[in-house]
Amino acid sequence: MPLGEFQLIDRFFARQSFHRTETLLGIGDDCALLSVPKGMALAVTMDTLVEGRHFPVGTAPRDVGHKALAVNLSDLAAMGAQPAWATLSLSLPDADEHWLSEFSAGFFALAQAHGVELVGGDTVRGPRVITVQLHGWVAPEAALKRSGARAGDLVYVTGTLGDGGGGLRVVQGNLSGKTEDLAFLRDRLDRPTPRVEVGRALAGLATSAIDVSDGLAADLGHILERSGVGARISLDALPLSGALRRSVALPEAKHLALTAGDDYELCFTVAPERVEQLAAMPLGCTQIGIIESEPGLRVSDPAGHPYPLDRSGFDHFGESG
Amino acid sequence: MPLGEFQLIDRFFARQSFHRTETLLGIGDDCALLSVPKGMALAVTMDTLVEGRHFPVGTAPRDVGHKALAVNLSDLAAMGAQPAWATLSLSLPDADEHWLSEFSAGFFALAQAHGVELVGGDTVRGPRVITVQLHGWVAPEAALKRSGARAGDLVYVTGTLGDGGGGLRVVQGNLSGKTEDLAFLRDRLDRPTPRVEVGRALAGLATSAIDVSDGLAADLGHILERSGVGARISLDALPLSGALRRSVALPEAKHLALTAGDDYELCFTVAPERVEQLAAMPLGCTQIGIIESEPGLRVSDPAGHPYPLDRSGFDHFGESG
Repeated sequence: MPLGEFQLIDRFFARQSFHRTETLLGIGDDCALLSVPKGMALAVTMDTLVEGRHFPVGTAPRDVGHKALAVNLSDLAAMGAQPAWATLSLSLPDADEHWLSEFSAGFFALAQAHGVELVGGDTVRGPRVITVQLHGWVAPEAALKRSGARAGDLVYVTGTLGDGGGGLRVVQGNLSGKTEDLAFLRDRLDRPTPRVEVGRALAGLATSAIDVSDGLAADLGHILERSGVGARISLDALPLSGALRRSVALPEAKHLALTAGDDYELCFTVAPERVEQLAAMPLGCTQIGIIESEPGLRVSDPAGHPYPLDRSGFDHFGESG
Repeated sequence: MPLGEFQLIDRFFARQSFHRTETLLGIGDDCALLSVPKGMALAVTMDTLVEGRHFPVGTAPRDVGHKALAVNLSDLAAMGAQPAWATLSLSLPDADEHWLSEFSAGFFALAQAHGVELVGGDTVRGPRVITVQLHGWVAPEAALKRSGARAGDLVYVTGTLGDGGGGLRVVQGNLSGKTEDLAFLRDRLDRPTPRVEVGRALAGLATSAIDVSDGLAADLGHILERSGVGARISLDALPLSGALRRSVALPEAKHLALTAGDDYELCFTVAPERVEQLAAMPLGCTQIGIIESEPGLRVSDPAGHPYPLDRSGFDHFGESG
């Protein structure tokens, strides 16, 4: 006999070891009751993962649990917010105990690492669709909006770009290379590292930020649009991992870095007068370009020529992705 | 060519006419930024609807939009909270403009009626699964928890019970009766009325509350379990609509009222010394029983005999529902 809904929730999700002092009432009532610290704005984000679309069929359930939370942590990071509370909606075709045990292990390991308490959710029978909503807080005046970039600001990214796209090619069997490089790229796709600490360090310092989930060109494009500015970036400046460099030809690696999704790095802008302050922090960021008043994104290739931007992003309802 | 994700969101969900003054940043950034009023606890609830499971295949998309929000409003009502902000995750097999237009019309009509602003979400391609998260606030000391019922408290419900179960039989073709009665029952299933105002009026007055989504016996059972008490209720006291009485035999109507889900009425308890205060308010409530110290739920039939409670609830992973 299948486990009942409430037993499932109890068994895998109500036994977390981590609790926040700001939680007035957690799982088990009609609502959770939460206390947002005085003077802080509540930051809220929600992401949905569909099997076969946002993670490959056959992805280890532990990694699915990690990624479902990681993509939301990445959104909070892009706001400069402190994560605090998650809710989880699981639509599952069956009450597979192994899947639930592994999924919750991956979810809770990342949650605890970032001080996130699960405070509610819903478990229903249906196709495998996972929605996580994450709540955190940030001082409203320090929040990293997409709309704050100004001409002259410098453009940065964290970490390396294109690894998520490389990982997807590994899944598709389109990449040959060293085993450890392919494993690295696959791991970057399946277990992205949300840049929560970097985001919090940038709060009140960066003028704008976004996380790179749909590809750098598309995501930086959102900053430009919301800020009413343009940007010039250098293809050569995009940071690439050794694993990606070794596994694909360099022009292809740069193209992935510019257009592939699923990297979950931060792209942000900093005013010139604050660059020194940024450089003093060990954040692992790379300057890739500059904000200009002329709208649009201009990418220069290594020879200084304009690099063509055609299909520049990942669109869940479009033809790519 | 299908509409892109961002165009879809823009077109149907970013053009709502209602905005709250407490919203610092709405749709269109990495997170929404929200300001919870001072001294208030944030109340959070999330519900997921799967087509064919939580609403019949063929349900009017406008009603699906209504119901997706209504079931969450019902959870806030059961907490005594003021609704404020919603997020919406839509997994859809295709970008059907008619469906989206109708769904959003149903969603926004109910949202505006309750002062709810949509502040974020996610739209992905996949099987039809809808998750709504709703946020509101309540003074923490006035919140209606499930755990506050005490022996001697009286048990009440709002409205009438069993109509949702009757509506499901209409869908299944298992009910014959007057056209207007069947339409009423179907409407109660498809367009439930969340008891938000009643819930707010009960905040600080009732000792416990829950919304009747899984059937009275199951939901009252949650109050009893969390409060460490029992209850005795009278089958004869359960309020029935005229439409249900006319459409099914009386014993069957009472059984539906006791066990069928999808009513979204409130079940709550009030201490004897506050009953007069409750009676002075025009809330449309019916007293159905009393809390006792002995654990368990005891139901008396009209002859005063114990009414057997076997399968008393709705379980999304079980065999019913």
